[in-house]
Amino acid sequence: MSENGAVMSLIDLERDRHVEELGQLLRIRSISALSEHREDVRACAQWLRDHMFSIGLQKAEVRDTSGHPIVYGEWAHPEPGRPTVLVYGHYDVQPVDPVELWHSPPFEPHVRDGRLYARGSADDKGQLFMHLKAVEAHLKARGELPVRVKFLLEGEEETGSEHLDAFIEEHKELLACDVAVISDTSWFAQGVPSITYGLRGMAYLQLDVYGPSSDLHSGSFGGSIMNPAEAVARLIAGLKDNRGHILVPGFYDRVLPLSERERVEFRQLPFDEQEHMRSLSVPEGYGEEGYTTLERVWARPTLEVNGIWGGFSGEGSKTVLPAEAHAKISCRLVPDQDPDEVYGFIESYVRRISPPGVRVEVRRMHGGRPALVPLDHPAMDAASRAVERGFGKAPVFIRAGGSIPVVASFAELLGVPTVLMGVGLPDENAHAPNEWLLLENYHGGIRSAAALLEELGRALPA
Amino acid sequence: MSENGAVMSLIDLERDRHVEELGQLLRIRSISALSEHREDVRACAQWLRDHMFSIGLQKAEVRDTSGHPIVYGEWAHPEPGRPTVLVYGHYDVQPVDPVELWHSPPFEPHVRDGRLYARGSADDKGQLFMHLKAVEAHLKARGELPVRVKFLLEGEEETGSEHLDAFIEEHKELLACDVAVISDTSWFAQGVPSITYGLRGMAYLQLDVYGPSSDLHSGSFGGSIMNPAEAVARLIAGLKDNRGHILVPGFYDRVLPLSERERVEFRQLPFDEQEHMRSLSVPEGYGEEGYTTLERVWARPTLEVNGIWGGFSGEGSKTVLPAEAHAKISCRLVPDQDPDEVYGFIESYVRRISPPGVRVEVRRMHGGRPALVPLDHPAMDAASRAVERGFGKAPVFIRAGGSIPVVASFAELLGVPTVLMGVGLPDENAHAPNEWLLLENYHGGIRSAAALLEELGRALPA
Repeated sequence: MSENGAVMSLIDLERDRHVEELGQLLRIRSISALSEHREDVRACAQWLRDHMFSIGLQKAEVRDTSGHPIVYGEWAHPEPGRPTVLVYGHYDVQPVDPVELWHSPPFEPHVRDGRLYARGSADDKGQLFMHLKAVEAHLKARGELPVRVKFLLEGEEETGSEHLDAFIEEHKELLACDVAVISDTSWFAQGVPSITYGLRGMAYLQLDVYGPSSDLHSGSFGGSIMNPAEAVARLIAGLKDNRGHILVPGFYDRVLPLSERERVEFRQLPFDEQEHMRSLSVPEGYGEEGYTTLERVWARPTLEVNGIWGGFSGEGSKTVLPAEAHAKISCRLVPDQDPDEVYGFIESYVRRISPPGVRVEVRRMHGGRPALVPLDHPAMDAASRAVERGFGKAPVFIRAGGSIPVVASFAELLGVPTVLMGVGLPDENAHAPNEWLLLENYHGGIRSAAALLEELGRALPA
Repeated sequence: MSENGAVMSLIDLERDRHVEELGQLLRIRSISALSEHREDVRACAQWLRDHMFSIGLQKAEVRDTSGHPIVYGEWAHPEPGRPTVLVYGHYDVQPVDPVELWHSPPFEPHVRDGRLYARGSADDKGQLFMHLKAVEAHLKARGELPVRVKFLLEGEEETGSEHLDAFIEEHKELLACDVAVISDTSWFAQGVPSITYGLRGMAYLQLDVYGPSSDLHSGSFGGSIMNPAEAVARLIAGLKDNRGHILVPGFYDRVLPLSERERVEFRQLPFDEQEHMRSLSVPEGYGEEGYTTLERVWARPTLEVNGIWGGFSGEGSKTVLPAEAHAKISCRLVPDQDPDEVYGFIESYVRRISPPGVRVEVRRMHGGRPALVPLDHPAMDAASRAVERGFGKAPVFIRAGGSIPVVASFAELLGVPTVLMGVGLPDENAHAPNEWLLLENYHGGIRSAAALLEELGRALPA
């Protein structure tokens, strides 16, 4: 048996232990958004540090930030000149509300129908753990890794990664690498291994509209002053035309058009538009004219209302003219849009279209840059071979509608591309009750991660 | 001293007792909207019935409805042919939340700076009680009333008077009268006695917009389906143009234009537009083009958003694409608009302008007809003289932006006009914390109510 065959065999032999150990990690309630779980988040970081030592990493540390800690780990190859792979993941998880909708408790992992149910199983504990298990298998079977490996595990991803960029900036030398790897994305569909090469960025803002100093009686004042709830509605309606085109001047200026090759490849993916809309229970799709659903989600920028509120929302009727109204709005950005520039465009336009008689404020909430990984980078070929070795099937290359801002940070601050080889599935309930990870993908993901180290060792220049 | 002089003197002598007794009524927590106060509402009805007997009414009854009870009382003049006056009022009150903003407890009446502070002091216990005290003074001083008097006191006004129209319809004979009187309106300003001759009606509805079957991730789905929060904003924005004109076809069809005489009289009222807007803390007024603020509020129909909600409204940012969004919208109607007709117009128009990809429903919440009392009815002259005798100053005739649907019911079901001679003030906090009634207006209101019985006895044909 070749050395690599030995690694794969060991991985296959130890499936039960891999699930059992992941279960331990999933039991830690590391919800970063809730301050009452602050100590759980730290406990999770410590568990990971201890685990890193136990699998044979040479270095493993919990690094404090002014938020939740970062876990850093390292295995430095004794031979000089081997390439360095930086594995990023996040060990914090989303809140679990509404907890009554879970079929089994969110922090008590349960296996049903080949799925491992628990908060964090897919996003992202289960996926980051694949890389630790792959490293462990190499070290156990062969005593060494084919490359130098660094781990950067974050505890604030679900709350906006507030301290991550500063940490990377301050530790460029520590984190120096040839390629980054993240498993925090989804396959196109079950049975369709996928590598993601495009991510959208984000510009999240809040619109605050202020009218009279207190709520007023709509009988005594209705019709004579601008109603903030009407004003916020007019503002939102004014941001797009009724064909889904965003009217903010400058918004599309830096949008890279889809290449003809991408459009053709998207069309070849197994996607049934009608079935998709049926599964969402909407009568029909809607979006920017001239684009398919996949193009709209993957390669076109958006402007969506995430929340709107003002005045009375209880049972029955209350004849109030609200003093204020608000909306949360987020734009998904595509390369080469820049969040700060987009914020500026929106602020100017909102000022221009604001109705009279109210005061309108735009608050910048959080931004993130979009990313495109060059398809012709040798790491992408290596990743493709690794996924094929892990799952017995060559992957498709896809883009994603969501955002992983650290990919742009790695490109800008460390100058490296990121291989996105997640094994999640579109209906995994990542931020909802009953989150799950397909165990078949977990085990195949460990195999792919192990193969990737070897493939990168071969593919990347020393 | 004339007989009438004796009535007025007695009223002036008994001011302290009038305040003390009103205090007893105000201590009863008759909040009709809250089921835990159901027994308090009944206790209030019983207190009023007992009080009616104690002041000398010949008949006083608590009449059950399937909601809160109605109190009926009567003094039938022994001489035939005297006109009949029906006094309407409501003994239920608004909830008191937020109770922490009250400077004294809402159900413990306190006098400060000539104002009586308590929930219901102005709306409407204090004002209905003026008429009971006026009747009492006549009976005490003269042993009889100048007219036949009936009292109709409701316990569901603050929750939409759900059972009142049916009661009137079923008891047309019992309630038969020549004129109705209500004190539940406000003066134009302190020191400016006012009689209200126009009220707006109401068509209150809820817009429900349904999109996907559950909240979705705005990254994975944003840009590809219609967002219900955007849809509700587009619907609201589509209901009016940006000059305040309502775009619903048919909406204005039955609107009676303002007469030139009314426009002139409105302009003569002591109203400082800039000062008014400053007091509301809004930079400028806004409304239908071509009308002044008073005209917009008193004589033009409106369409106002009372509440809007959908998606995420907490701290920070959540990238959700909401499954549904809603708005509460109310139209204030003017003569001769009809609520049911207006509902129909809005439903058709909303259907026509609804965006694709969502399901939109219009729910009718509650409606009420507008009313105009003929200024040339002899009861209006009588009321004017009565207010002048009560306060030493002739009243102005004004309209009001709010709604008192029973005025239209009296016109339609009993065929009588309603004299609206309330003594509230615009800043009395009727539905807010720290509701108050100016004691000077309370005492003058009792004098006016006593004078009104006499004036109506003279003015109305037997």
